[in-house]
Formats: sequence, C-alpha cells, structure tokens
Amino acid sequence: MNDHDTCSCHEPHVHGYNENKSKYLARLKRIEGQTRGIHRMIDEDQYCIDILTQVSAVTSALENVALALLQDHIAHCVTGAAKADGEAAEAKIAEAMKAIQKMVKS
Amino acid sequence: MNDHDTCSCHEPHVHGYNENKSKYLARLKRIEGQTRGIHRMIDEDQYCIDILTQVSAVTSALENVALALLQDHIAHCVTGAAKADGEAAEAKIAEAMKAIQKMVKS
Amino acid sequence: MNDHDTCSCHEPHVHGYNENKSKYLARLKRIEGQTRGIHRMIDEDQYCIDILTQVSAVTSALENVALALLQDHIAHCVTGAAKADGEAAEAKIAEAMKAIQKMVKS
Amino acid sequence: MNDHDTCSCHEPHVHGYNENKSKYLARLKRIEGQTRGIHRMIDEDQYCIDILTQVSAVTSALENVALALLQDHIAHCVTGAAKADGEAAEAKIAEAMKAIQKMVKS
Repeated sequence: MNDHDTCSCHEPHVHGYNENKSKYLARLKRIEGQTRGIHRMIDEDQYCIDILTQVSAVTSALENVALALLQDHIAHCVTGAAKADGEAAEAKIAEAMKAIQKMVKS
Repeated sequence: MNDHDTCSCHEPHVHGYNENKSKYLARLKRIEGQTRGIHRMIDEDQYCIDILTQVSAVTSALENVALALLQDHIAHCVTGAAKADGEAAEAKIAEAMKAIQKMVKS
Repeated sequence: MNDHDTCSCHEPHVHGYNENKSKYLARLKRIEGQTRGIHRMIDEDQYCIDILTQVSAVTSALENVALALLQDHIAHCVTGAAKADGEAAEAKIAEAMKAIQKMVKS
Repeated sequence: MNDHDTCSCHEPHVHGYNENKSKYLARLKRIEGQTRGIHRMIDEDQYCIDILTQVSAVTSALENVALALLQDHIAHCVTGAAKADGEAAEAKIAEAMKAIQKMVKS
C-alpha cells in the first residue's frame, strides 16, 4: 500500500522509530493491558465515570505514542527526503500532514 | 473512591450502560485486538505513517466508546438524579462535565 | 430551525446561559480581540510558531466557552426536560450528545 | 522571545506562510466575523445548542488555519534547516513538535 520498502533515507524496513523500538513495544504492551482493564471494569459493573476516566487515560497514552512516532518520522524520513530530493520531500510532508490532521481532528 | 454503590437512580452495581453491556465488552475486545495489531506493526518494522493511521483508528474507537458511555450515563444517572433531588443532580452534572472536559481537551 | 421558543424548562428566549450572559459576552469580546491579534501577527510577518501558539490559545478559549455553555445547558434545559417529560428529555439528550461529539471529534 | 529574525532558511521577516499571506489574512477576517456572530447570538438569547454549533465551526476553522501554517512551516523552515545544518534542524523539529502537541492535546 505504500513505500515502506523505499523510504529515501533508510534501509528497507528500517524506520525513524527503530532506535526506540523496544520502548514503543513496551508502551503498546502497557496500553493493551489498560484496554483489558477497561474491559474488566465494564464486566464488573464499575461506575461509568471511573470507566470514562480510564478511557481518557488510554486515549492520551495513544496520542503520546503517535506524537513520538511522528517526531521520529519527521526527524528521519522527512528531513532525510529534504536533504536528498525536493520533490520526494514534498510528498513526505503532504503525507505527514494528513497524519497530523487525523490526530488534530479526532 | 466514589459513589457507584449509591447511584440515586439505580440498584447497587447497575449502571446506565448495563443494558448495552455485551456490546461494550465486544467493542473493548476489538480495541484490545487493534492495540495488539499496532504492537505487531512496530515489531515487524512497518512504515511509520501506516502505524500512525492505526493509532488514530484506535483513538477514534475509544472516543466513540466514551461518547456512548457518556450518553448512557446522562440518560440514566444524571436525569435520574435530576428527577429525584436537585442537589444530587448538580453534583452529577459537575462530575459529568469533568469527564467531558477531559474528552474535549485531549 | 429548532425549538428555542419552546424550551420545556424556560420562558421563550430565556436559556440556561442567561444568568451568566454578561460574562459570556465579555469572553467573546476577548476572543474577538485575540483573533484580530492573530490577523495582525500574520500581517506583520511574525514567526509561524508564535502564531501557532496564539491560534492554540484562541482554540482553547473557545472550547472553554463551549464547555461552560454545555454545562449551563445540561443543568437547565436537559434536567428541566427530565423533570417534565421523559420523551422530551430523550430528545434533549440526543441533541446535547451531538454537540458533545462535535466538540470531542474536532 | 524567539528567532523570527534569524530563520535559517529565510530573509528576516520572510516566513513559510508568506506566499499565502493574503489568503491567511482573509481567513482570519472571516473567523473574526464568525466570532462576532457568536457574540450576537448570545446577546440575542439564541438557543444554546445553535451557539455550540457555531463555536465548533470557528474552532474547526482555526484548526484548519493552524494546520496550513504548520504545513508551510515544515515545508520551508524545517526542511530549510535540514538542508543547511543538522543541529538547527533538530531544534526546529523539537519546536514544531511542541506546537503539534498543543494542537493535538487541545
């Protein structure tokens, strides 16, 4: 579906987030656990407002992961493309802006 | 920590979301699966922008769960309190507004 | 377009925000001034990031106005409808939820 | 307060948004008018939900201005710094990420 094999600034399958990969995996594990926790809260008939607080916490944790991924992406792929080739950079920026728009508008 | 045993409009441990409980549990299961999918995408070195798209999808799914829980909460607990007792209603509304603020401001 | 003349809990043209009306008007005046300030920053070629900071400040001020209006609306119109008539309350809650959804999803 | 006179990729006081300046000024004028419209709606005691709809429209218009400014900023200042100097680029990216975080988290 896209060009993850041909990122202009990376080896195939090596991306901006690569050097922080284990941290990202740990964060996702924690978020998965929190999601399971919300499932349990509903199953145990806990109070709606307490569940909403937990849902907001997970939403916020996911947004923080997205912001970190984006920073790695801009620092590596976008600036990498900028150095290599103006047109490729433009495409990378347009693509990144679509992702930012989704984050801002949700 | 809060009054989930004494909600003015419900039996103990029966909340606004109760009649939709199995639907909420299924939605949370799906979100847990999507979170595991993001973990796998990172583990398999997939492209950053594709991962961001998935993170936005999960964030949006969680927000939809929160909005549905909130609607059930207002329709049952808040209006229940409004019918029973003005002061209790005020406290319920203040509590719900805090939850809405967290949703809007994140 | 809607029922602002027949709100079940109010005189015609008297709404939940009415007792705080002068405060709301002052807040809107301030937001209008801030918007004019952003126009001036762009006209004077100020730095993009400083302009973005100001845009975020105005967005946040508008969200706070919306949250306050919503609280007044729930405290007066929604609970008023809840006390008077179950069906009217349901319609009021559905309408308020649409407004909350727009706030959360933007 | 910041380096708007020394942007590494621009003449003093020439920024990424410069070539779209008149469009930005027109958008801000329209937003100022919409803000004045909300003030009038409150002054005329219009229905709360209609006012909330208008507040959401203005918030959304401001977010769109912010996204456009950000795109111009990344396309000019950030990639300009990337081409010129790695360290300056890092500082520009950190600064842009703070602005994006404010947009996402509000």
